Amino acid sequence: MKYGFGVDLGGTTVKIAYFDENGTMIAKWEILTVTADGGKQILPDIAASIQQYIAQKSIDPADIVGVGIGVPGPVNSKGVVNKCVNLGWGVFNIAEELSKLVGFPVKAGNDANVAALGEYWKGGGKGCDNMVFVTLGTGVGGGIVIEGKLLHGTHGSAAEIGHMVISREEEEVCGCGKHGCVEQFCSATGIVRLANRALAATEMDSKLRRCSPLTCKDIFDWGKAGDPLAVQILDQYYAYMGEFLGDICNVVDPEAVVLGGGVSKAGQMLLDGIRPYFDKYVFHAASGARFALASLGNDAGAYGAFKLALDAFG
Amino acid sequence: MKYGFGVDLGGTTVKIAYFDENGTMIAKWEILTVTADGGKQILPDIAASIQQYIAQKSIDPADIVGVGIGVPGPVNSKGVVNKCVNLGWGVFNIAEELSKLVGFPVKAGNDANVAALGEYWKGGGKGCDNMVFVTLGTGVGGGIVIEGKLLHGTHGSAAEIGHMVISREEEEVCGCGKHGCVEQFCSATGIVRLANRALAATEMDSKLRRCSPLTCKDIFDWGKAGDPLAVQILDQYYAYMGEFLGDICNVVDPEAVVLGGGVSKAGQMLLDGIRPYFDKYVFHAASGARFALASLGNDAGAYGAFKLALDAFG
Repeated sequence: MKYGFGVDLGGTTVKIAYFDENGTMIAKWEILTVTADGGKQILPDIAASIQQYIAQKSIDPADIVGVGIGVPGPVNSKGVVNKCVNLGWGVFNIAEELSKLVGFPVKAGNDANVAALGEYWKGGGKGCDNMVFVTLGTGVGGGIVIEGKLLHGTHGSAAEIGHMVISREEEEVCGCGKHGCVEQFCSATGIVRLANRALAATEMDSKLRRCSPLTCKDIFDWGKAGDPLAVQILDQYYAYMGEFLGDICNVVDPEAVVLGGGVSKAGQMLLDGIRPYFDKYVFHAASGARFALASLGNDAGAYGAFKLALDAFG
Repeated sequence: MKYGFGVDLGGTTVKIAYFDENGTMIAKWEILTVTADGGKQILPDIAASIQQYIAQKSIDPADIVGVGIGVPGPVNSKGVVNKCVNLGWGVFNIAEELSKLVGFPVKAGNDANVAALGEYWKGGGKGCDNMVFVTLGTGVGGGIVIEGKLLHGTHGSAAEIGHMVISREEEEVCGCGKHGCVEQFCSATGIVRLANRALAATEMDSKLRRCSPLTCKDIFDWGKAGDPLAVQILDQYYAYMGEFLGDICNVVDPEAVVLGGGVSKAGQMLLDGIRPYFDKYVFHAASGARFALASLGNDAGAYGAFKLALDAFG
């Protein structure tokens, strides 16, 4: 049996997990992400933590196939990071650098892309060769798996789907500096924005007026309970999501679309709400994609990171 | 040296070409597409034409790697056609069927996808591992090449980019039955539609009013000559194209976007017009894609079809 590590590098903590080649997670732990001084300490800290684990457990280094890492920024298929603003990083080859430090081969990818690979391997996309993963959190991100392989993109920016344009007329600015991005409408914060707009545009009473602060969960909860304004906001949200997912499926034609992130906690209600709009907006021949919920939660990145290394070096 | 055939199956004619493994086109010819009787005769006609050529030229069948074919409808990676309305075809494995008839291994793909592979190999996308090909003709189609391989899609419908939604408010119906598809705005007929709308909406004089029937070429020609209404229509067109191509690049992050079809005859003017809007709408990290014009014209399908066979059996 071979083993390896999956690393999910975030702006606050680094999640590290140890797996066997079947994808069984044997251990997981976290260390802090030290972003001071241009993030210089991050990779040495990760390498030290992995080596410490190997020493403690008396693991034979010959049994380790490699280390995979997901990074919060663009990473191309050669492992070159193209700036991670959160970490203070510029442009360099993270795979080569971490490999030198840790003494094992390293494969790197963008964090959302790598999480997609995790969901493909062991989560909501299990059994699908072609899969699109969409995270609906504070922002909207995702990853695309084609014939079992992650799509990195030429500049490491494949599946930056949160920044597809969905409304050119939008006047508010997206975090990316553009206007009318999917993220402004379809993220957890996007749906709250839609709700606040709807509340301001009408005198209609709604339970949502008593939620302070108003959250994504409130909107789904009160929608489920039949609050008319919440129902109307959700309907608007589902229409945006249907158009958004339809557009992606018209490009990629996947077998499954897997939804993760905070909004996906709404569960089956979310999938059922989006589906009729998806069917309306997608090209008929690409309409066969099934919808599923992500199932690995915060571990998707570690699973996917290890899978990346396993595919490359296993 | 090995050789093979590339077949571009259209609704009116079948283009057949004979290549060497370097991609030199040695001969090309056409036969009629006989769509009568559910298109039963099409594959036997293609097989007979290829066998006749082999006999005439005294080619050793052992030198033939295989036959590739592009089909006007969805084809998955296993060669299963999912209805070609133009040809009267239902669902069947065209690769297996044609292989039995012609006596060589056969690989099949959707015609626009296959043309993309041709442009990738020998045309406007030469030298790019990741490429998006967009045909702007009567309709809008395309194909996506990722790490040198064609993206077929689970249902054979990858790159049905002409049916991404670009304006949900559109009331006219697209050929596909939906509303607001890219094809309604970005095709050669789409730009004429935009122009006719603009002409109806204003009293403004324009050379375009004297064009009957008004064509895509007229709009570019008069735009180039500085006709103010034509300039305004082109600007609107470029904005739609910029949004459309930006959205695709946010999904795929290619190295190059290659434009073909009738509209692309406008040449560099088209690329220069789209670019500023593309830069406005695309996510910054995916903005590095270069634009190029298709260069193989009607031969792209035959080149790509042979390349498909060469990759599979060569």
